[in-house]
Amino acid sequence: MTHSSPPPPVCVLGLGLIGGSLMRALHDRGRRVFGYNRSEETVSAANGDGYDASADLVATLTRAAQESALIVLATPAPTIDAILADVVRYAPQCPLTDVVSVKQQVAATVHAHGLSRNFVGGHPMAGSAESGWQATDAALFTGAVWVVATDDGADPQVWRSVAQLALDTGARVIPAASDEHDRAVASISHLPHLTASVTAVVGAGEGELALRLAAGSFRDGTRVAGTAPHLQQAMLEANSTALLAALSETIDRLTFARDQLRDHGTVETLVADGFRARKHYEKIHAAGDDPAITVELGTDGWEAAFRNAARQGAVWAG
Amino acid sequence: MTHSSPPPPVCVLGLGLIGGSLMRALHDRGRRVFGYNRSEETVSAANGDGYDASADLVATLTRAAQESALIVLATPAPTIDAILADVVRYAPQCPLTDVVSVKQQVAATVHAHGLSRNFVGGHPMAGSAESGWQATDAALFTGAVWVVATDDGADPQVWRSVAQLALDTGARVIPAASDEHDRAVASISHLPHLTASVTAVVGAGEGELALRLAAGSFRDGTRVAGTAPHLQQAMLEANSTALLAALSETIDRLTFARDQLRDHGTVETLVADGFRARKHYEKIHAAGDDPAITVELGTDGWEAAFRNAARQGAVWAG
Repeated sequence: MTHSSPPPPVCVLGLGLIGGSLMRALHDRGRRVFGYNRSEETVSAANGDGYDASADLVATLTRAAQESALIVLATPAPTIDAILADVVRYAPQCPLTDVVSVKQQVAATVHAHGLSRNFVGGHPMAGSAESGWQATDAALFTGAVWVVATDDGADPQVWRSVAQLALDTGARVIPAASDEHDRAVASISHLPHLTASVTAVVGAGEGELALRLAAGSFRDGTRVAGTAPHLQQAMLEANSTALLAALSETIDRLTFARDQLRDHGTVETLVADGFRARKHYEKIHAAGDDPAITVELGTDGWEAAFRNAARQGAVWAG
Repeated sequence: MTHSSPPPPVCVLGLGLIGGSLMRALHDRGRRVFGYNRSEETVSAANGDGYDASADLVATLTRAAQESALIVLATPAPTIDAILADVVRYAPQCPLTDVVSVKQQVAATVHAHGLSRNFVGGHPMAGSAESGWQATDAALFTGAVWVVATDDGADPQVWRSVAQLALDTGARVIPAASDEHDRAVASISHLPHLTASVTAVVGAGEGELALRLAAGSFRDGTRVAGTAPHLQQAMLEANSTALLAALSETIDRLTFARDQLRDHGTVETLVADGFRARKHYEKIHAAGDDPAITVELGTDGWEAAFRNAARQGAVWAG
């Protein structure tokens, strides 16, 4: 199961913050990479910066098929279905991954196009409130977590290609089932967008003077509310079931806190729980090097073994 | 109304993050400053760093009276009442201010001790999730907003001393009425602690894997939940009326978002409102130098004129 041949070229579809940063990171590591974006302006900017980009999707996919490239879907969730129709037509044999922030919906769409056999999803846990080619950064993934979908029946060779792609950007590879991933990001990535938004709205509603007084807690707590709304909507709405559960729990906990403050003059419970949760998060992220997964990729039951190892703190190190 | 004599020495009661940083900042600017902390350990640390600190409150207040020092109350809100009893006894003539994050409650406590004539409250909008002397930083207030309470009937001379103290730390002085301040900080400072806490709790409740996947949105959105719980409680519970209103609005908006997501599959309203609010905040803070208040301090109606100027973006520049 080891790679003796050079890694395949990479074809990135969508050159926004994630796709464009991926192109930069891979290029810097010496991987062959080319890409597509529907906007001529983005393509000109990318080509002007020395990258290999095109606004012609059919030509890009035809080239991917000829070169047996690993195709990366890096456009917003609502566009994936239309892109896959062209993948089926022009590059149906290519290994396929994505960088969309939900995994079950994309997997279902891939399945509907009959491409599941070639597909292993992925999700780099990196970003910024900025978007578009001008925000791209070759170092965006350095040290970041890159989830590689590890569902039963995944093709080990495609899985290896996708995980190697992530490692080549400087990311840490964490295997997870698609549904487990989606529940997790609802709580730790999508919900924080809504709490940031509501914090911003209530603060701004208090008027100009209040916003002038806003300091670090407001600045950091509302940062991601400044992400382009259509990108936030695409991300959050694609994970609506899991997000609904996280949002309902949030409302319940805030309502309990409100009642405790009104009836007993204290915010003790929420503040104490929040402190414990934050310290637990800090402890997990302060830990040193992650242990490597030792189960061999592709052996019987490797998918479940990888997932279990990841839950206990391991990463896939190649 | 101008200062011809050298500014008075400053007596800081409480050498935690804010009081200790104030001592450092003033000392660096050449102001005479001494202080008190009830913990011998903190006093040793401060003296070891070359500052003038004591664990003897009576001796410190006696010295403040002898030197006509400006006394700064920098202990947590629940301790203010007990400290004021000693101020009345040992230094009743000294000008007095505070750095507590709520203004109405402190003003009422000061009033109950008969010290209102000497008192002008203040609130530096600066902090960190760290606390105690080891977290102090002479640059903590540089560029930060320092609200100086500007209620009708404030003594212009005390007001000037307090505002000058703030300027000497490198802060920007914004006059505001105590009630206006308290409503504002409920929304832009206290509420963000509760939204950070609930975000941390819901994320951590999803388990270890979820916390491993947590990236920038979670890190920034939960940062202030890591502040020492007793400090958060003291701050938030002292402003419970205004915080209750902000918290109820937050619950209402999240409930609307939850219903919209459940019934229509979209988070459009909250995301769009949050984006607008965040951009408005960014615009206010990206503006260049603030204009200076031109009304002369102490002239008839200066308090209202100062407040109005501040609402329109002006600062007091000395």
